[in-house]
Amino acid sequence: MEKIRIAIVGYGNIGRYALQAVEAASDMECVGIVRRNPIRDGFEELEKYKVVSDISELGKVDVAILSVPSRKVEETAPKYLEAGICTVDSYDIHTGIVDLRAFLSPIARGNSAVSIISAGWDPGSDSVVRALLQALAPKGVSYTNFGPGRSMGHSVAAKAVPGVKDALSVTHPAGKGVHKRLVYVELEKGASFADVSAAIKADPYFVHDETRVLAVTSIDYLNSMMHGVNLVREGASGRTEGGKFEFNMRINNPALTGQVLAASARAAFRLKGRNLPGCYTLIEIPVIDLLEGDPDDLVRRLV
Amino acid sequence: MEKIRIAIVGYGNIGRYALQAVEAASDMECVGIVRRNPIRDGFEELEKYKVVSDISELGKVDVAILSVPSRKVEETAPKYLEAGICTVDSYDIHTGIVDLRAFLSPIARGNSAVSIISAGWDPGSDSVVRALLQALAPKGVSYTNFGPGRSMGHSVAAKAVPGVKDALSVTHPAGKGVHKRLVYVELEKGASFADVSAAIKADPYFVHDETRVLAVTSIDYLNSMMHGVNLVREGASGRTEGGKFEFNMRINNPALTGQVLAASARAAFRLKGRNLPGCYTLIEIPVIDLLEGDPDDLVRRLV
Repeated sequence: MEKIRIAIVGYGNIGRYALQAVEAASDMECVGIVRRNPIRDGFEELEKYKVVSDISELGKVDVAILSVPSRKVEETAPKYLEAGICTVDSYDIHTGIVDLRAFLSPIARGNSAVSIISAGWDPGSDSVVRALLQALAPKGVSYTNFGPGRSMGHSVAAKAVPGVKDALSVTHPAGKGVHKRLVYVELEKGASFADVSAAIKADPYFVHDETRVLAVTSIDYLNSMMHGVNLVREGASGRTEGGKFEFNMRINNPALTGQVLAASARAAFRLKGRNLPGCYTLIEIPVIDLLEGDPDDLVRRLV
Repeated sequence: MEKIRIAIVGYGNIGRYALQAVEAASDMECVGIVRRNPIRDGFEELEKYKVVSDISELGKVDVAILSVPSRKVEETAPKYLEAGICTVDSYDIHTGIVDLRAFLSPIARGNSAVSIISAGWDPGSDSVVRALLQALAPKGVSYTNFGPGRSMGHSVAAKAVPGVKDALSVTHPAGKGVHKRLVYVELEKGASFADVSAAIKADPYFVHDETRVLAVTSIDYLNSMMHGVNLVREGASGRTEGGKFEFNMRINNPALTGQVLAASARAAFRLKGRNLPGCYTLIEIPVIDLLEGDPDDLVRRLV
C-alpha cells in the first residue's frame, strides 16, 4: 500500500516531534521539510530529508503538517489548501477556533482538500474527551485542570518584565478549574526581587491567579517538557444524577502535540479520500480515522 | 425546528432509561413504545405514550432505539432498517461486533438508513476512549478495569447453580485488567453452602478469577445499579516514552446505557441527513454528532 506523503512545515519544537511521530507510523512517510530558510541548521535527523523553502519542490504531497506558531496558521494554510494539499495544525487560541474554521472551510471545500485545525492536546484530544463527557452527562459541570507543567505564554510574559533575565512559569492545578502559578526568575544584575515579583503579580497574565515568584540562579535546570491534565465532569445521564467522569494524563507536551498532528494528518487524508472536503476540529471527525490499520481489526480490538 | 422522532423498541430496564434520556433532550421526542405484548404493564410514565406491537402504527419514525437483549439485535434490526428507519442498540457481545456490523451494513446502505451498534458504555463510550488513547500513544499497553458493580452474566450463571435461590455477582477491579468476583447467594432450604460455593468457583464464568462466595439472607438489599470503569494506557507518543493516560467513571449502569443510546439516535439521524448510510460503531462517528446544539456553539464551548 502506498504511504501517505507528509511534509512538515516549520521545524521548531513541535515540528521535530511531529516528524518523530510520522517516522514511528508505518503508513506515512515524510517527503521533506519546508522552512523559510531551507537549511538543516545542525539537525542531524534532517540529513536524510529534503529541506526546501517551497513545497512545490517536494513533488506530490498529501498532507502538510503546519508546525508554525498559532498566529501564523491563518496566513499559512490557504496556500497549501489551494494546491489541493490537506493541512493539519495545532492552533491553540481557543477564542479564535470558530473563526479560523469559518475562514478555512470554503478554501478547503473549493479545492477538495481537508484541513484539521486545533489538533494538539488542548485544544485537541482534550476537546474530544470534553465532547464525549458532554454526551454522557448532558447536564452537569466540567472542570479542566492543567499541570503541573510549563506555560509558554506565562513564561514569555514574565520574561518581558524589566529586571528579568530569564523566567519560567509553571502552572499548578488548584482544583475546580483554578490554577496557581509558580514563576521562577533569573534576575538581571542589580534588579530588585521585590520590584520584579510585584510587577509579575500585577501583570494581566497573572493578576487573576495565585502567583508565587521565586528567584533562582539558573532557569535551565528547571526546564521540563512534562505536562498534564485532569478533566472532570459531574452530571446527570438522562434524569439520573450522580455520574462522575474523570480523564487524567501525564505527558511530554511537544511529543503529544506532534503525535496528535501526525494522527490527524492520517485522518485528513482519509476524509479527503471519502470525498468529505472541509475544515474540521477533532470533535468533528471519527476517532477511528486517527488510527493506523484495518477498520475491522481496529473495531475488533478497541470497541 | 422539527424534533427527531424516536420509537423505543423493548421496554425493560434499558428501555426505561433510554426513554428518560430522550425526554431530557430538547431536540428529540418519543413517538411511542413498541412491545411484543403492547400493554403499559403498570408503567405510569407510559400513560402519555402510544404502546404498540408494530412500529407502523406510530406514523413517521426517524430512529428506533432497540432496547432488546443483545442476542436479539441481529434479528430485530433489519425490519426497521428495511423500512428506512435508523436503529441504535447496545449490543454488548464484544466478539460478535464485527460480524454484526458486516451483516447490518448492506441492509442499512441499501435502505439509505443508519445503524449505530454497540452504543452503550462498554462497548460504547469506553471504546471511544480506548481508540483515542491508541491515537495518543500508538505503542503501549492498555487495561480496562471494571467495577465495583453488578455483572448480569455472572449473576445469572451463579443463579443457575443447584441450591441457589438467588444470586448477585459483583465485579471488583484488581488492577491491570484483572477482576475479582464477590458472589452473594441466597441458598435454597437445605442446600449446602460448601457445595454451592465449590460449584460456583468451578463454573466457567468464575474459574479464571479469584472468587469469593458469601451466603446472605436476602439479595434484594444488595442490589445497586452503580458501576464503574478505570481505563489506563501507558505508552509512547511518537518516539517519546512515559505517557500515562487514565479514564475513570462512576455511573448508574442502565442510566448511562440509555443516555448513550439516545445520543446515538441523534447521531444516526444526522448521518442519514448527510447521506452517509451504513452501520457504525461509536468510534466510527464524529463525537459532535452525539450532542444537541449548534455546531459552532459546541466547537466554541468544547474544543
